[in-house]
Amino acid sequence: MDKKEGFKSSLKVYKGIPQPPSINPDVLTKSGHKRRKKYSADEFVSGILAGNRTILSQAITLVESSLPEHYETAQVIIEKCLPFSSKSIRIGITGVPGAGKSTFIETFGLYITGEGRKLAVLTVDPSSQLSKGSILGDKTRMEQLSIHPGAFIRPSPATGALGGVARKTRETIILCEAAGFNTVLVETVGVGQSETEVHSMVDFFLLLMLAGGGDELQGIKRGIMEMADMIAITKADGANKLFAENTRVSFENALRFFPKKTSGWVPQVHTCSALANTGIKELWEIIIEYSAFTRNSGYFETFRKEQAVIRMHNTIIEYLNNSFYNHKEVRSLVPEIENQLYEGTITSYKAAIKLLDKYFKRHTE
Amino acid sequence: MDKKEGFKSSLKVYKGIPQPPSINPDVLTKSGHKRRKKYSADEFVSGILAGNRTILSQAITLVESSLPEHYETAQVIIEKCLPFSSKSIRIGITGVPGAGKSTFIETFGLYITGEGRKLAVLTVDPSSQLSKGSILGDKTRMEQLSIHPGAFIRPSPATGALGGVARKTRETIILCEAAGFNTVLVETVGVGQSETEVHSMVDFFLLLMLAGGGDELQGIKRGIMEMADMIAITKADGANKLFAENTRVSFENALRFFPKKTSGWVPQVHTCSALANTGIKELWEIIIEYSAFTRNSGYFETFRKEQAVIRMHNTIIEYLNNSFYNHKEVRSLVPEIENQLYEGTITSYKAAIKLLDKYFKRHTE
Repeated sequence: MDKKEGFKSSLKVYKGIPQPPSINPDVLTKSGHKRRKKYSADEFVSGILAGNRTILSQAITLVESSLPEHYETAQVIIEKCLPFSSKSIRIGITGVPGAGKSTFIETFGLYITGEGRKLAVLTVDPSSQLSKGSILGDKTRMEQLSIHPGAFIRPSPATGALGGVARKTRETIILCEAAGFNTVLVETVGVGQSETEVHSMVDFFLLLMLAGGGDELQGIKRGIMEMADMIAITKADGANKLFAENTRVSFENALRFFPKKTSGWVPQVHTCSALANTGIKELWEIIIEYSAFTRNSGYFETFRKEQAVIRMHNTIIEYLNNSFYNHKEVRSLVPEIENQLYEGTITSYKAAIKLLDKYFKRHTE
Repeated sequence: MDKKEGFKSSLKVYKGIPQPPSINPDVLTKSGHKRRKKYSADEFVSGILAGNRTILSQAITLVESSLPEHYETAQVIIEKCLPFSSKSIRIGITGVPGAGKSTFIETFGLYITGEGRKLAVLTVDPSSQLSKGSILGDKTRMEQLSIHPGAFIRPSPATGALGGVARKTRETIILCEAAGFNTVLVETVGVGQSETEVHSMVDFFLLLMLAGGGDELQGIKRGIMEMADMIAITKADGANKLFAENTRVSFENALRFFPKKTSGWVPQVHTCSALANTGIKELWEIIIEYSAFTRNSGYFETFRKEQAVIRMHNTIIEYLNNSFYNHKEVRSLVPEIENQLYEGTITSYKAAIKLLDKYFKRHTE
């Protein structure tokens, strides 16, 4: 299927989104090679608001760029898109190894797009720098969804620290929503810290688990169970169906031993099968129910605002941290101080003060 | 019972601890009032190592002091005591409201001292600044333990931020251990953050819960269940006994749904009654078993070393944080920036950069 054609035809479904502007994203160089046109921030914004995917993709590339000349333009684009980013539902998805996350997202995503929604799938994977991005990987693992006109799949930016990856994902959410994607799935790779980051940028957190007696929990990191608004036991098909159902009951009992959620929402446990395409519709309906429940109570809006404030403070703390630990003299002193701590010849407090003195260049004996 | 007498007689039990030095802790002023003698750091250290409680108490007061002239002496004392602080077991205790923490510590503490161990009971309570310390309170709520010659009870320092309170508690642990207290109970008031702090300073974490069907968990903060090495269902006596036993089974099932502990230890759930004095001995035996298990695997030592490194980094982060948020211009700008975030007119990242620019005094438009 021709992607541009598909996108245009899908536009008819989503009224109110104007046609893409007549900006030709590619111009030919003298040698006949295509060269990307350099858009102004305003051109980017109107292209995004018009739902032009090529321009959206280029804007995301700009957001992901670490070049200083890209930074300013990216920030202007994001800020202009910000007012258009609120009419959406953002869903975080993680799962234990083997839960079949990609297959689930493929089936779940196709259901959601089938409901007439526009879906963006983003990934937070601080380890993806190893493979320098994985566009092909993502397109392969979600074969049908990746070519679906109502879906937009974007892999994790292939850059450095988690904080950076997470920020770029947050900013990408804004751009996608401004481009008309009203449903955003943010997938994490299950390395613990990334789930906390994702929890701070989504409205609803879905955890995929396997049927089992508890041992399968070895793959799950601290605190993730407590974040879940819904647990889906995957692969509930064939001989595994009854087993999955028993696991569902166990999880429901276990969840009673977790602290109450501030949203007032009681986390749900359900079984599903991406293979047999069962339980998928039900999961989506619960997310819709959650959205209605929290929008009604006002929590939905309040939580998004709180998330923004929390993320600002997290960004500050991360920056202060980096500034400290990348300080040349601090960096060269840390191993020696840590050694003293291991040998028990210095207190943690004194050790901290010694390093802080180096950073703030105060006199120390 | 005369406390000094009691202490002296208890010394006979604990061989290897020398007699207190002939330092008279109190000298008379001209007006006949007692005045504290000013010890040198070395006098403090030898007094502490000799197990002199009056000197220990004064050293702790020095550690808790916020006066700059006390700081240097306190740090010298702590560092000299550090090598004597490793032959101990440190137990963190917290509980849901109504679990009867004080009564439990009284009974449990009397059992431990009855086993010939020397017990220090410390409290981490960042809210105690309101009551400006609670020595009398603590002595009242642990009536027998507070006058027991083998026990030393010290309430939370009545000063400011949690980080400060926690640091002082850590340093007090070192002094108590150097004074021969080989068992340390660190009690928290259950405000969430303080448990995490205490978890970073103890070897074993005990959680006190009430019998119930899950609703009683409302009083427990996020992440605390996952920290527990043992859960004790208290008040398992009389008509409540069977109920407590059922709750024990539920908790055991629920714990299977928590991530495995890095120590390799499988958390235990037991019932006990401080009133009927049942289950207390068993709890203590499990702590001994834990100590043997983790010392044998090497985890005990490794964990203490890691705790010291983690605490150093936490202290640094806290300091950087305070330095930032107490910065005059930052402080006056925060409300305005948070407002912009609430109105959705600025991204979290841009908001953070604006504040960081103020702090680092860089030029900003």
